[in-house]
Amino acid sequence: MTVQLSVAIQGERGAYSEEAALALYGPEAVIVPCRTLHDVFLALDQGNAHAAAVPVENSRAGTIVETYDNLLAHGYPVTGEYRLRVRHCLLGLPGAELADIRRAYSHPQALSQCRRFLEGHGIVAESAYDTAGSAADLAGRRDPTAAAIASRRAGELFGLAILAEGIEDRQDNVTRFLAVAAPPTLAPGPGRTLLAFTVGNEPKALYRCLGPFAKHDCNLSKIESRPDLETPFDYVFYLDVDGRADEPGVAGAIAELAEIASSCRVLGTFGG
Amino acid sequence: MTVQLSVAIQGERGAYSEEAALALYGPEAVIVPCRTLHDVFLALDQGNAHAAAVPVENSRAGTIVETYDNLLAHGYPVTGEYRLRVRHCLLGLPGAELADIRRAYSHPQALSQCRRFLEGHGIVAESAYDTAGSAADLAGRRDPTAAAIASRRAGELFGLAILAEGIEDRQDNVTRFLAVAAPPTLAPGPGRTLLAFTVGNEPKALYRCLGPFAKHDCNLSKIESRPDLETPFDYVFYLDVDGRADEPGVAGAIAELAEIASSCRVLGTFGG
Repeated sequence: MTVQLSVAIQGERGAYSEEAALALYGPEAVIVPCRTLHDVFLALDQGNAHAAAVPVENSRAGTIVETYDNLLAHGYPVTGEYRLRVRHCLLGLPGAELADIRRAYSHPQALSQCRRFLEGHGIVAESAYDTAGSAADLAGRRDPTAAAIASRRAGELFGLAILAEGIEDRQDNVTRFLAVAAPPTLAPGPGRTLLAFTVGNEPKALYRCLGPFAKHDCNLSKIESRPDLETPFDYVFYLDVDGRADEPGVAGAIAELAEIASSCRVLGTFGG
Repeated sequence: MTVQLSVAIQGERGAYSEEAALALYGPEAVIVPCRTLHDVFLALDQGNAHAAAVPVENSRAGTIVETYDNLLAHGYPVTGEYRLRVRHCLLGLPGAELADIRRAYSHPQALSQCRRFLEGHGIVAESAYDTAGSAADLAGRRDPTAAAIASRRAGELFGLAILAEGIEDRQDNVTRFLAVAAPPTLAPGPGRTLLAFTVGNEPKALYRCLGPFAKHDCNLSKIESRPDLETPFDYVFYLDVDGRADEPGVAGAIAELAEIASSCRVLGTFGG
C-alpha cells in the first residue's frame, strides 16, 4: 500500500508553490494549501502534512527571510531544492479574446512585473491577495473583459483560457524553493549543505568563520548576513555550501566552523 | 535664495518611503512620487528630482534586490541611510469607530503583517495596490465600515481618523532606506561604505576577498551574495563596511580588494 505524501504550500492550489511541490514530490502528492508561511510550518507541527515546499529566494525580490525564521524556529530539515522559472500568464474566461480584456487581477508584485505588457494592451491593473486566488475568482465571474495574471497551471486548474504567456517584463525571474521535512521523491537537487551560524560583532569574526571552507576547498554558493533579532549587535549568517555534509571536506569545514562560531546549525543537506 | 530639494520616492504621498525621505532631507523637501523603483531612478536621470530615498532592506522581507540593480545600472552614489520602524495604523473616516469597521484595504504584505489584529476584530482583509493609496481611496469614499492600513502620516495627509496604531503582529519591523544622489541634509547615518564586487565561482575567491578587511580591522555590517545575472556562475557580493572610504583602514582594504576581485565598485560612502 502506498501512502500518499501530503505537502504544505503557502497559497492556494494553482500557486507557483504548487508547481514546485509537484516537481519535488511528484504528481501524486496531496497539496495542503496554507495562508501564510507560518501556517505551512504549523501544518507540519500538527501532522497535517508530511512535507513542505517553501520559497527561499527570488531573483528579483531577494531572500525570503521569513522562511529562514520558520526553519530555525520549527527545526525541520531542508531535504532538497528546486529552481522554478516564474512565467506569468494572462488568463481569461473560455472564449474571451486578448483584445476584449479591460482589467487584470493579481497580486501587486505580479502586476508590477507585467507592467509593460498591461500598458501596451491598455489593461488596467487591479490588486488581489494572490495570483492563484485571482484566477479562482475570475472563474466564478461572468465578465469576459476581466482577466487574471497567474501560472499556466492555475489556468488549467480553474478551466480558464491562456490568452498570453510569459508576459513578465524581465525573463530572468526564478524562484528557488526548498523541500522541508520529508525528502523529495523527484528532485533533491545538486549536493548541497545549508548552514546557519552566529558570530559576535567583531571585525574578523566572519573572516575567521569562512577560513575552514577555504582550507577544505569548499565552494560557497550563497552567503547572507542578518542582524540577530534576539541578540542586538550579533549577526546570523546563512551559508550554502556545495556538497553534502557527510563528504569529508564539508564535514571537516563544519567541524572547524563549530569551534569558532557562537552557534552553528546544519539546516539541511541533500542531493549529490 | 534657497533651492528646495526634490526627492523621488516609490509610492504615493503618505507612503513609508515619504517618511524616510523627510527624515533624510528635511520637512521642506519636495516629494516626487513614482510608481516603481525603476521610475525613481528615471526621475533622477531626467532631472525631475535631485535625490531619492529608496528601501534596501526590511527586517521581515529581506534585501530589496531591485534597489541594488538600479544603483548599479544608473550609477548614482549612496549618500546616507535611515532606519524606519514601520508602524501600521488602522485608518477610518472621521467619526468612524473601531467597532464599526468590517473591511480593511491595504497592500497584501501589510494585510498579512496585521493578520492577528484583523482576525481578532472580525475585519475582512481586502487587497489594494499600496498602503498610502488605500488611505487616499478611503478618503474619497463615504463608507464608515471601511478602513485602510497605512502609516500615521497617510492618515494625517488624507484627513482620516487613526482608529488603532501599531497593529502589526510583530514589533521588529524595520525598513532601511538609502539616500541617493544628493547628500541628505538631516540624517547621513553612521560612517559607512557600501561596496559591490564580483568574483568568479572558485572555492576560495570570497574568502580571499574578505582577507583585506580582516587585515585592516574593518567591521562588515552586511554581506550578501547574488548570482551575477550577466555572467552565469559568477557572483556579485554586496558588502557594508563600517567607516568611511577615506579612512586609512577602509581605504587600504578597498585597494587590496580591487586587486583580487574581478570588479569592485564603491556604491557610496557617508556619515561618521
